[in-house]
Amino acid sequence: MQIDFATSGRILFGNGKVTELPQLVQGLGQRAFVARSKSHPYAQQISTLLQTIDVEAVEYVVQGEPSIASVKNALDQARAAQCDLVIGIGGGSVIDTGKAVAAMLANPGDMMDYLEVVGLGKKIANRSKPYIAIPTTAGTGSEVTRNAVIAVPEKRVKVSMRSATMLPDVALIDPELSMSMSPALTASTGMDAFIQVIEPYVSNGANAMVDLFCRDAIPRAARNLFKAYQDGQDRAAREQMAWVSLMGGLSLANARLGASHGFAGPIGGMFDAPHGTICAAVMPAVMSMNIRALKERASESEAIKRYAEIAEWMTGKAAAEAEEGAEWMEQICRDLKIPRLADLGINRSDFEQIVEKAGHSSSMKGNPVQLTHDEMIEILDLSY
Amino acid sequence: MQIDFATSGRILFGNGKVTELPQLVQGLGQRAFVARSKSHPYAQQISTLLQTIDVEAVEYVVQGEPSIASVKNALDQARAAQCDLVIGIGGGSVIDTGKAVAAMLANPGDMMDYLEVVGLGKKIANRSKPYIAIPTTAGTGSEVTRNAVIAVPEKRVKVSMRSATMLPDVALIDPELSMSMSPALTASTGMDAFIQVIEPYVSNGANAMVDLFCRDAIPRAARNLFKAYQDGQDRAAREQMAWVSLMGGLSLANARLGASHGFAGPIGGMFDAPHGTICAAVMPAVMSMNIRALKERASESEAIKRYAEIAEWMTGKAAAEAEEGAEWMEQICRDLKIPRLADLGINRSDFEQIVEKAGHSSSMKGNPVQLTHDEMIEILDLSY
Repeated sequence: MQIDFATSGRILFGNGKVTELPQLVQGLGQRAFVARSKSHPYAQQISTLLQTIDVEAVEYVVQGEPSIASVKNALDQARAAQCDLVIGIGGGSVIDTGKAVAAMLANPGDMMDYLEVVGLGKKIANRSKPYIAIPTTAGTGSEVTRNAVIAVPEKRVKVSMRSATMLPDVALIDPELSMSMSPALTASTGMDAFIQVIEPYVSNGANAMVDLFCRDAIPRAARNLFKAYQDGQDRAAREQMAWVSLMGGLSLANARLGASHGFAGPIGGMFDAPHGTICAAVMPAVMSMNIRALKERASESEAIKRYAEIAEWMTGKAAAEAEEGAEWMEQICRDLKIPRLADLGINRSDFEQIVEKAGHSSSMKGNPVQLTHDEMIEILDLSY
Repeated sequence: MQIDFATSGRILFGNGKVTELPQLVQGLGQRAFVARSKSHPYAQQISTLLQTIDVEAVEYVVQGEPSIASVKNALDQARAAQCDLVIGIGGGSVIDTGKAVAAMLANPGDMMDYLEVVGLGKKIANRSKPYIAIPTTAGTGSEVTRNAVIAVPEKRVKVSMRSATMLPDVALIDPELSMSMSPALTASTGMDAFIQVIEPYVSNGANAMVDLFCRDAIPRAARNLFKAYQDGQDRAAREQMAWVSLMGGLSLANARLGASHGFAGPIGGMFDAPHGTICAAVMPAVMSMNIRALKERASESEAIKRYAEIAEWMTGKAAAEAEEGAEWMEQICRDLKIPRLADLGINRSDFEQIVEKAGHSSSMKGNPVQLTHDEMIEILDLSY
């Protein structure tokens, strides 16, 4: 066992927990930069709530996924107002925007200085300003991860700003906040969460700590994602999916991911589609290809046993074959009306470029088996 | 589900991990206060190791359990040397001494200002100085908890200095460091760890997060504690018990304990006996009494089902009765040569005072069932 585990300073989880926000804010700062989603009913109330404890709010409505330009815009406002505290309430885009702003408020210079790949990749020296992350979707788990994903539209890539100093101080997860999600959003974010407990579990970064989270969450996701999709008011299913999302964040932040996320990075940079949807679109083929490749090249590996375990949890069948898990995944993608790659504006002529970029991604390096060029093309083809 | 989870900033676990200490120290400070055990071979090398990275070490050898006087002495030295970083390497007494010093270095005044019960119980305002906790026993899990237990000999009590700001920055757990423990120390510390994954699991503070740790660790402890006791060089068993200890710290810090720790607090204040030994001495009777009381007064409770689960994990028998777990516990205490209360210098005439004090302890309030005065006396009697 070799483990290196870190998470947010404090994780609060439970229905109604968001009402504790004023107490959590007290003592952390006087002027809060509030990154929020446009339309979530609770997100709109934060400023009023902060007034009751004499904390000033500088509101910033996040629209679309964070880009270099949008985060710069947010940061300029936060710096101009001398904010000493950040709150993010919304989906992954909001949480990541807040995370990047909290980091940049405590570090000099421009975000480009710190970005991977497209920037200078400088080490982030100072711990972020206090940041409270409040997810309103059950998906990214970004409230307990150490990176913010930023789009660079002119280069058609997404890159991360990443540092252990960027872990939010408080992850405040109130499952009731996720009840306003549409079925489509429930499906895409829920599949993101689901995949984030599957990929780390079979990844080559799997470890005893992350195993705990994945073993707990995979069966819960299998039993509850479709329920939450079918009936958004199913409180129990919403709570379970919020938990799966948290487990996913803890898992990906402390192990590695795999080919599904390896593809989703470059595809998300090149095409305008939600991250979770892309992950889900390729996941059935990733699973079946990984199982085939493992059986061919590493039939005694721990990963292949784990795929069989996953199949048992998904299907509820004792001694299910690994392949049955991949089939189950294909079926739930159909049930959740997950689009195919063809529906996302991707052409077959893009495949080579996607595979080339995906091959260099850190998630692909966590995949339990090294996929060949042809296998990667085949995954895209099967998902088309 | 309602969860409030916090832990050390970073948890590193694995054989050989302690060699990463210099990298971990870099950037944290220039002058380290090193609280260490007297005789552990690795603890003696820390100063030399720090020299290689130009960090000055102020060494303090911890002897016996921390008391108001000993911590004051340590703190005076740390303040005089203007230490800006603390390292603790040793058993629970060492880790707690370092934790208290790291807190007091960042907060003004005297420790008595902050202590529960015997002091003013003032809120600790400032986050501790950076603290790296390196356990050399597999027991307390103090490397991931937010309190330091301090003895007040003149009042014959132990009290806690406690705050979320006291969570160590780094918990560095290297199972190899525990291999030098004697069989007796392996038994007492190992039982402490074991009980710290049992009591939270049945406590009235149990929650989905802590359940993960307990369900994982109880079977591991049941399979490995006696092995580690019998053969201190059994690396696999040592690793498993180090893991159980970590899980115990995570569990007790994020749920509650129960009657065994409820008794161990006051007994430890009144008599000179290792904490783990006291916990173990009463644990079989605590389990059987809790099971009896639950069956009488809350036969449908979740706790009673959990005692049955624990019995299955311990005995390896499907559908074991809850009581078989208590019997198994009694047997392992005999196998590990855990002393009885009579062997610890306790007299029957002390029982009333112990029960009176234990009744007020926070651990006793976490017990799955409220025990009557007579039931508590009976536990002590059965453990005598």
